[in-house]
Parts: sequence; C-alpha cells; structure tokens
Amino acid sequence: MNVLEIIAKKRDSKTLTKEEIEYFVNGYTNNKITDYQAAAFVMAVFINGMTKQETTDLTLAMAHSGEILDLSTLNEIIVDKHSTGGVGDKISLILLPIVSSLGVPVAKMSGRGLGFTGGTIDKLESIPGYKTELEMNQFVENVKQIGISLIAQTLNLAPADKKIYSLRDTISCVESIPLIASSIMSKKIASGAQKIVLDVTVGKGAFMHNISQARELANTMIDIGKLANRQTVCILTNMDEPLGYNIGNSLEVIEAVNFLKGDMPEDIKQVVLTIGSYMIKLAGKGEDLEENKKNMLKNIENGKAYEKFKQLVEKQGGEISFIENLDNIPRAKYIEPIYSQKSGYIHQIDALEMGKIACNLGAGRITKEDIIDHQAGIILQKKVADFIEEGDVLAYIHTNKIEELEASKNNILANIKIEEEKIEKPKTILEMME
Amino acid sequence: MNVLEIIAKKRDSKTLTKEEIEYFVNGYTNNKITDYQAAAFVMAVFINGMTKQETTDLTLAMAHSGEILDLSTLNEIIVDKHSTGGVGDKISLILLPIVSSLGVPVAKMSGRGLGFTGGTIDKLESIPGYKTELEMNQFVENVKQIGISLIAQTLNLAPADKKIYSLRDTISCVESIPLIASSIMSKKIASGAQKIVLDVTVGKGAFMHNISQARELANTMIDIGKLANRQTVCILTNMDEPLGYNIGNSLEVIEAVNFLKGDMPEDIKQVVLTIGSYMIKLAGKGEDLEENKKNMLKNIENGKAYEKFKQLVEKQGGEISFIENLDNIPRAKYIEPIYSQKSGYIHQIDALEMGKIACNLGAGRITKEDIIDHQAGIILQKKVADFIEEGDVLAYIHTNKIEELEASKNNILANIKIEEEKIEKPKTILEMME
Repeated sequence: MNVLEIIAKKRDSKTLTKEEIEYFVNGYTNNKITDYQAAAFVMAVFINGMTKQETTDLTLAMAHSGEILDLSTLNEIIVDKHSTGGVGDKISLILLPIVSSLGVPVAKMSGRGLGFTGGTIDKLESIPGYKTELEMNQFVENVKQIGISLIAQTLNLAPADKKIYSLRDTISCVESIPLIASSIMSKKIASGAQKIVLDVTVGKGAFMHNISQARELANTMIDIGKLANRQTVCILTNMDEPLGYNIGNSLEVIEAVNFLKGDMPEDIKQVVLTIGSYMIKLAGKGEDLEENKKNMLKNIENGKAYEKFKQLVEKQGGEISFIENLDNIPRAKYIEPIYSQKSGYIHQIDALEMGKIACNLGAGRITKEDIIDHQAGIILQKKVADFIEEGDVLAYIHTNKIEELEASKNNILANIKIEEEKIEKPKTILEMME
Repeated sequence: MNVLEIIAKKRDSKTLTKEEIEYFVNGYTNNKITDYQAAAFVMAVFINGMTKQETTDLTLAMAHSGEILDLSTLNEIIVDKHSTGGVGDKISLILLPIVSSLGVPVAKMSGRGLGFTGGTIDKLESIPGYKTELEMNQFVENVKQIGISLIAQTLNLAPADKKIYSLRDTISCVESIPLIASSIMSKKIASGAQKIVLDVTVGKGAFMHNISQARELANTMIDIGKLANRQTVCILTNMDEPLGYNIGNSLEVIEAVNFLKGDMPEDIKQVVLTIGSYMIKLAGKGEDLEENKKNMLKNIENGKAYEKFKQLVEKQGGEISFIENLDNIPRAKYIEPIYSQKSGYIHQIDALEMGKIACNLGAGRITKEDIIDHQAGIILQKKVADFIEEGDVLAYIHTNKIEELEASKNNILANIKIEEEKIEKPKTILEMME
C-alpha cells in the first residue's frame, strides 16, 4: 500500500478499503503524508464522493487518530448533542441543564466560535470565574457528583480531523457531505458519545442552505451512526433568522438563564424540547417523546433546571451572583437602539448577516487568534412575522467599538426586511430523522 | 480574484478565464500559492478536465513564467521536434543533422533522461568533450555558423511547468491529457519554437498505452498549437518494442552514427524520414513530403548528414576521433551474450521492461541525482517478427555492474516472447495528424 495508489483510486472514483483509509489518516496525522498529497486526496473525495462505508471508515480512523475520552466509569449511556452551527444558538446552555435535571448524565466537551458561528465555550466564559479547562478526572468526577459538566476540548481529540479540517478551508473543500459528516461524527465518537442527537441547521445562517442538502448530511451521519454502532438522531431546524432574540456571548447567557427561569421564546423552546426529548429517550430515561417534553417543562416551572445550571456554574468555579442577578453581568459601553424606518410585518432577519455584524461588533473571531469581546452583540426586539410600528425599536446594538456603530446600524436595517403583507410564523422544526 | 475561487471553479467543472489561469500559474511560480493549493487545483483539473482554450491559456502562462528563448536574430522559421519518450529513442541524434544538412536551422535544447526513458543530452555526453552547456550567445552563434546546435536546458525555461510537473508526480496526477499537453507545449514555446513536430509514442514503452489516448493527446497539442499560433504536427509512432537495436547512451550514439553512415534499421528509418519530412516542410524548405524524404536519404548517401553531425560534435568541443572510429568509444567491462532458449518468431520485445533493465544496468537514473553509466545498456540482435534459432544470440548485455548480470539476463529472456507462428512486422508509423 502506498499513498500514490490510494490517491489514484479515489481520483478514479473507486472505493477505498478500511485499510487504505486508515493508512491515509494515520500517515497524514504522523506527517508521513504531506499536505499536498492530502490536498489532492481531499479534492478527489470532494469531487468523487465516498460510499457510506468509506465515510464511516474515515470517521472511525479520524476518531482513533488521537485520544478517545473514556466515560465508561460513569456506568451510564452517554448521549451527546451537537449543532452544525448557527447564529444566536444558545441551545446547549439551556438544554443540557434541563436533561441533566431529569437524570440524563451530561459529560460534554464543546467548541469555540469561529467567524459568524458562536461557540458554547465562549459563551460560558462570559460568566466570571467559569473554568472551561478541567483535568479529565475532575471532569468525570463532576458528572458523577452533579450529573453535568461542560468543558472545552482539552484532550488531543481526533487530531486527523483537525488537520483535514484546516486544510479543507485553504483548498476550497469545505462543502462536502462526506467530509462534513465524518468531521462531526469523528469528534463526537472521540469525545466518548455512545448515542448522538444532531441539530442540523438549515438556511441563511447555516452551512446547509437548503433542506435537501441538510437531509443528505443528516442521512450520512445517521448511516455512519449505524455502521459505527452509535445510534444517531438528526433534527433539522430553521436557521434563516437567528435563534431567539440575543446574539453575542454574555447576551446569550442572559437569554439562556431567563429561559431556564421560564421566559421562553417560542423558537428556542421548540428546539430545546425536541432535541431534549430525544436525548432523554436515547439515554433510556423515557420512551415517550411527548412525556419527555412535559417533564422538561415541569423542571423549568419547578426551578430544577435553573438550579442545575447554577450547580454547574458553581462546580466549575463561576460566580453564582452573576446568574442570580443578571444585572451584575457587565454590559458594553455603547448600547444603541435601532429604530424601524417603516411599519409592517417582518419578512426576514438574515441570520448570516446578523452573525457577521455581531462578529464585527466584537462578538466573534475572524481568525483563531482574535480575542472575543463577551459583551458585544445584538438584541433583537422582533422576530419574523411580528408587526412593527415605524419608530419602534427593532434591535439594540451592544458594543465597545464606537467606530462600528454607524455601519452596523445600517447593516442591520438593510438585512431586516419589512413588508406590508402579513406572513405566517416560519416553522422552527423542519424534520426529524432517525 | 483569489485562489480559493479559482480552485472552487475548477472543482465545480466550470471554465476558467485566461486571467484566472495566469493568476494561478504566476502565484504558484512566486510561491504565493502553496503546494497544497496547487495540488487541489491540479487534482480538480485531472478529474474535471480543461477546454482547449483553458489548456492553451495554461500552456502560455507556463511558457511565460520564466525566460523565453529569443531566436529572432536567426531570421529563420524555427521548427522544433519533441518525442513523448521511449526506449532506444535516438531519433534526435540522427534526424537533426540530416535536416540541418538540408538547410533547416536546428537550435535545440534537449532534456536528460529519468527512469526508463533516455534523454538526448545524456547520449551526447557519452561523446568525450561534448559540451552540453553553452552560453546563449554561443548557442545562437553556432546555429548561425553551422546551422545546428544541440544543448541542455540551461535557461530558466517555464519554471511553472517544472513545479507543476514535479508536484504531479507526488500526487498521482501524471496521466492527464491537458496537463501532459500543456507541459510539453509550454517547454517548446519557451525554447523559441515557432512550429513543432511531435513524435507521440504509443505502446508498452510509452506514456500513452493505446492509440485512442495518443490521438487525444495529439489533438490537444495540435489545438494548442492553433490557438497559440504555433503550427503543430503529430506523428504517432509504435513504442511496443524499443526503437532500433541499441539501448543505452553510448550504444545509441554508435547506432546513430552508423545510421548516418548508411546502416539504417527499418523502424528508425521510418520515424526519421517521417518526422524529418515534416520539419523540412514546416521550415519552408520543401513542400513535398516524399521529395523531402528522398533528399534526406540522398544526404545520407552522399555523406552530408554524417559530416553535419561531425561538425556539430566538433563545434561543441567533442572529440571527432571517437565518431570517426567508433571502436574508440569506451565499452563496458562486461559484455554478455544472451542465447535464445528456443527457435521461433519473435512476437514481443517489451520496450518498458527493456528500458527498466537497461536502467538497472546503469544506463538510466532512478532519481534525478543518480549518475549515469554511459557504457551500460542492451544491444538487441533481433526485432519483432524476426526468426531466431535456439542457441543464437538474442541480445548482448553491456554493464559495469557484475551483480546485475544474472537477473538482467533472466529478465530479458522473460520479456522477449518467441512463438512458433510467423507474424507480420508491426507498423512503425501509426498515424500522422496535423
């Protein structure tokens, strides 16, 4: 076996064996295969595709290219949750304490944001004191003690995926279903997941721009799950407009805490309940999805979910006072209202553009080295299908960069469409696939 | 314009503009585009192909990526000749003095051999004293004075082609028609050719293994020639068995000199006359191809072609005495006959295998750094369709590596097929395309 033969096979649209895929993944991880050879291989995969079995073999080879998180001492079925990314996506912050309060163990490693897509770890770090880097034994111990821990990826998980992922960015090979699917699934498997619920976002603020692409990605991940013995469920959700009202790290923490206290925007509620009901089912803690949803709502009403969130924050060193009194969370220097220039129904709030604007205001990273401003972001006052009166506040800009104010205002106005005609609320949950 | 867009366009099978192709070629030449980006691009070209116009734009961009040899002071139509490579291919050594003796100016830069394919420059260097590296003004001056000069590529010709060519080798992207065609044509254009005659070899010892591939390559190069205003003619020739009898550098010089003195193996004769007749025509020195062939033969009979060869050697510092008495050319230490193990007609002499065996005996380079043994090689005693008696000599091995003798003997025997049935002489000239 040699790399030239493997590249040539995929170049000619032939099917690679498990051994050939492992040879490539290990060779690239160990720098025995060069970046340019990997680039040629990845381009051939992009153009010629991969079978389900090949995609699964790639996933498992990448998952096993580094450490695999061993959660067996928890003696529980570990269900992980992942979103393919979006704007205003604070689902993990809300969902995980709820399901944990219902007995589903949560041992989750999350990522940071890049570009217009936020990351759960950045959001958690806007809580003063919250430690996102724990030793592995402490992480597992926390789950044992309080049923939940949420940390950054500290282990050397799936290093092959990291290399291939960065390479893809530089060679125009991002939008490939087998490459996206294997990247997501390899990280989930490496981080110890036995069952997986995936939020596949669809629309302007997502990587998948239409439902058929999203279905293909979901099907591919479900197939990988079957072949890799990791039961996988996919929820296709709408990401045309941002999720909820708040975009930006501490602003999203505030919205999440308010949700756990009972103030539930409808779109967030639907996503949280749908994904949560499946997580509870896969964890073996409740067969009936509707029953699971009721139990989730009950634990919001009775305060158990909110208590679980506080317990999590406290256990990881965060200052509870900030959660108990959200006014304590530091705000940006400039908070500017944007007034609607006409009356009418909101037809579109472009999620991608809102994400980019928030990023420019300081909420995101353009490059990996950028430092995030946790206070920066946007708070929308309206959602798609709402009516707004001319002169009413459409949104607030939060920023410490005064120089970005004017352009951001204009950009927000340009990317929220208001028309005379009434429209229906868009669907949030598009499909469930398992 | 940026490299990601250009890669994505070719990835999606779209047609690139001249500006995009130039952007890529210049960026890669200047190291602003990385090897891995070039690898992704080249793989996309391999799989999705290129239009005639794209291939021509690539050719011209590569040709202009470095110096262009300016032969305008010669005030003549410069016709170049190139072979896509073969075993025992000493055509240039024979053909160029002949056409030069008929008034066609020959200002030729040739390559060195790599792998089983020999190079004209290595062959010339087996003549003691022959200088293959001349200053450009000396090179042009020689052509002015005696009508011929044959040197190694000393200028920085088509550096983009050099980079892409080496890259292709390491990423399984060698056998691509637009990439092969643009590589050949860019070098010819950079070395000052106005008209080009190409010997496209077909068969076991060639890069093109069948006639349809060879036709496609030939058509592509003819189209490039049209679009780039460099009239191009392709001769498709058989490379199933080696050309002539001798394989190896000084052994091929000996066969070439003997040919110029009138001892003409039939297959060499056909290739020389066909290519030569076109060169004379394109140079404007004779419209009628058959007439041109007659004139070539006449200049062999009357000794003018042989004299021209001696003039060339002398002018470039070579020792004429070695040409005038071929016995003076040093021979290898071991010259071993191989006896036929049966009687019958020769059905096959595998050119690729003969090339590899000669290479192992010392006649070729495995890597660019290897030093060639000019004395090493094989002299066949028979050609395909000839009859041989059991016990007669089939070939002689010439080598200084005694350790290679036994294996080479067995290898030669294994790759020459002898059968009872009579067969017809294979065709040497398969097609002419213009």
